[in-house]
Amino acid sequence: EIEFDPTTHPHRRLNPLTNEHVLVSPHRTKRPWLGQTEPPQPSSLPPYDPACYLCPGNARAGGQRNPAYAHTMVFENDYAAVLPAPGPAAPPAPHPLLTTAPVQGGCDVLCFHPRHDLTLARLTVPDIERIVNEWGAIYRRRGAQEGIKYVQIFENKGAMMGCSNPHPHGQVWSLSAVPSLPATELANLTAYAHSTPPTPSAPAGPHGRACMLCDYASFEVRVAREEGRVVVQNEHWVALVPWWAIWPFEIMLLPYARHIPSIAELTQEEKTAFAEILSRLTKRYDNLFSCSFAYSMGVHQRPVPAPGGDDGDDVAHLHLHFTPPLLRSASVRKFLVGFELMGEPQRDLTPEQAAARLRACSEVHYLDVAE
Amino acid sequence: EIEFDPTTHPHRRLNPLTNEHVLVSPHRTKRPWLGQTEPPQPSSLPPYDPACYLCPGNARAGGQRNPAYAHTMVFENDYAAVLPAPGPAAPPAPHPLLTTAPVQGGCDVLCFHPRHDLTLARLTVPDIERIVNEWGAIYRRRGAQEGIKYVQIFENKGAMMGCSNPHPHGQVWSLSAVPSLPATELANLTAYAHSTPPTPSAPAGPHGRACMLCDYASFEVRVAREEGRVVVQNEHWVALVPWWAIWPFEIMLLPYARHIPSIAELTQEEKTAFAEILSRLTKRYDNLFSCSFAYSMGVHQRPVPAPGGDDGDDVAHLHLHFTPPLLRSASVRKFLVGFELMGEPQRDLTPEQAAARLRACSEVHYLDVAE
Ligand SMILES: O=P(O)(O)O[C@H]1O[C@H](CO)[C@@H](O)[C@H](O)[C@H]1O
Ligand SMILES: O=P(O)(O)O[C@H]1O[C@H](CO)[C@@H](O)[C@H](O)[C@H]1O
Repeated sequence: EIEFDPTTHPHRRLNPLTNEHVLVSPHRTKRPWLGQTEPPQPSSLPPYDPACYLCPGNARAGGQRNPAYAHTMVFENDYAAVLPAPGPAAPPAPHPLLTTAPVQGGCDVLCFHPRHDLTLARLTVPDIERIVNEWGAIYRRRGAQEGIKYVQIFENKGAMMGCSNPHPHGQVWSLSAVPSLPATELANLTAYAHSTPPTPSAPAGPHGRACMLCDYASFEVRVAREEGRVVVQNEHWVALVPWWAIWPFEIMLLPYARHIPSIAELTQEEKTAFAEILSRLTKRYDNLFSCSFAYSMGVHQRPVPAPGGDDGDDVAHLHLHFTPPLLRSASVRKFLVGFELMGEPQRDLTPEQAAARLRACSEVHYLDVAE
Repeated sequence: EIEFDPTTHPHRRLNPLTNEHVLVSPHRTKRPWLGQTEPPQPSSLPPYDPACYLCPGNARAGGQRNPAYAHTMVFENDYAAVLPAPGPAAPPAPHPLLTTAPVQGGCDVLCFHPRHDLTLARLTVPDIERIVNEWGAIYRRRGAQEGIKYVQIFENKGAMMGCSNPHPHGQVWSLSAVPSLPATELANLTAYAHSTPPTPSAPAGPHGRACMLCDYASFEVRVAREEGRVVVQNEHWVALVPWWAIWPFEIMLLPYARHIPSIAELTQEEKTAFAEILSRLTKRYDNLFSCSFAYSMGVHQRPVPAPGGDDGDDVAHLHLHFTPPLLRSASVRKFLVGFELMGEPQRDLTPEQAAARLRACSEVHYLDVAE
């Protein structure tokens, strides 16, 4: 009888955060690629671009002029996807299957640094810590506004991820509803807390109950080291390719030493360690294919706490997802199309193989290597 | 008090097939687009390409030579994502959160026509009917194989949808498990059938129960005509932009006159009407931006019926999803990134606006218009 080999035999893995499967077909990387390749990226960007609407002192689409900012800069998106409260009430549904829910909120843009050419991978740890602090400040400020239920922090990096300006920046969309994906994760975290006995070696969640992500991170850090999904780790945080990763080099970054519902609850030391691991991870990403590595990044955490009450949302455990599209090189990406859109996500190398590739990368940025 | 206007006020719509929301932000189309544009497509392709591994008489990657086929051609994918049974049993999970399920099956490639340059939009209705018949034959043939539970028919069209060969073709992946998305749809169709009283004016599902998709299609065709989500219709089929569409010009194509679980249960007349509406819809798609319109298409239907028994899977109602990425022109697409990957899908024009644009298109292909 043949033994099961995850690098040869197609199999499905379950994502317990979403309850959805991913189809793993590792032998597929062997096929030749004749399809679309991505255009090469600009090999170098100027530190200041007079045509960039995010550089210090320049004018934005809305007509306003950016200050001569020295660190981060935050402003409201000129083309926001949601608008401030109050909005009109939704009309009655024309049919029970055709429901409309109004939604309110605000969209912020966060410039990471005045330098047009410095992404997270090239910023200093103190500069990244300023970004971490700004995320915390926006989470608190937007969360204090009437009716805001969720603060979605994210970054689209690279033209192939729909980013229209290479100036390093992220976005924060704050909404009067919890978006579908964090809502699903929250429901599964809640079900886990109520159905699973706590693991003595892992940090406990609220009321001493089990936390799925604390259990998972502890297992990866303490038990499964040889299986090798951990990429980088420090005293407080771990970056790993999750067992159920969809994108070729997908990463989940999370604190593993204690249960932490949101970015507002990080200690000073945890914030510094957060900045440090972000720096190390993004340097490895850039070094993988010697390019400015495109990705979407999103922060998942506790919805805005209800004033006063224990709403149970503190089962949420702060974590970040990085979903980069590249598969084989700086120009060959994975397309999540056809079967992935209509059936279920499918990946072409195992998460363990992806993690090994990222572990083999240096933490000195390829542009900073002395010739 | 202001009245709710779906073309101005951001809102969320619920997809009852998946139970997930889409955020509709119609005012966002006003923003300028400075991001990535798609490379122009070849303006014309030769009828035969000696370098194409799908053209008649040519050699394929695996070394085999294609026959001089006259209509459709089916072969097993040389780089299949799943492999035939039996495969080895899955290993025990190293942790309850890290589960593996083995999966078996087969992957077929279906060439639509010997002509390298003729997509669905340019084929005759009889030629499209041959493709419909081939889909039915594969569904039956693969479904008769031991252990196959689902037959996923799909097409990736266009380089921007990860298709590596413009020769018109689709794929069929047959699996020993129902993939996540059709499984979710089936669960929601089942819940609807058991919780909703039948609508007298709509076709009934099995056991006289309500069918969500029959109810929905009937409502769009019979009641909601002025709201305008219907794009094309014939006696048996309707193509519409669903209330909960994610992609700018997404289409759901389904039979509305009676409950039809799978492609194997179509009458001759329904098959001809299917081919006819596929022709009309894809011509409109190409005419929208005067280009060969990229999309992923997938057929959702009943899982392979269990031999003999009534397994309840006949609540499934045959339907096709078309998910095209273009938003503004032949070169400007919608990116489902950052907020969409981490929060929930977001769209920039209403489904009603998209349907109106497609209704305004001609059904004479732009390449066939006499100069
Ligand atoms: O099978 P193909 O055409 O080589 O590949 C294409 O379709 C597959 C199924 O949707 C995807 O997994 C691939 O990412 C895509 O490039
Ligand atoms: O807001 P931006 O950067 O203009 O736009 C980008 O991010 C948004 C949020 O993920 C997406 O909806 C857009 O499709 C994408 O191009």
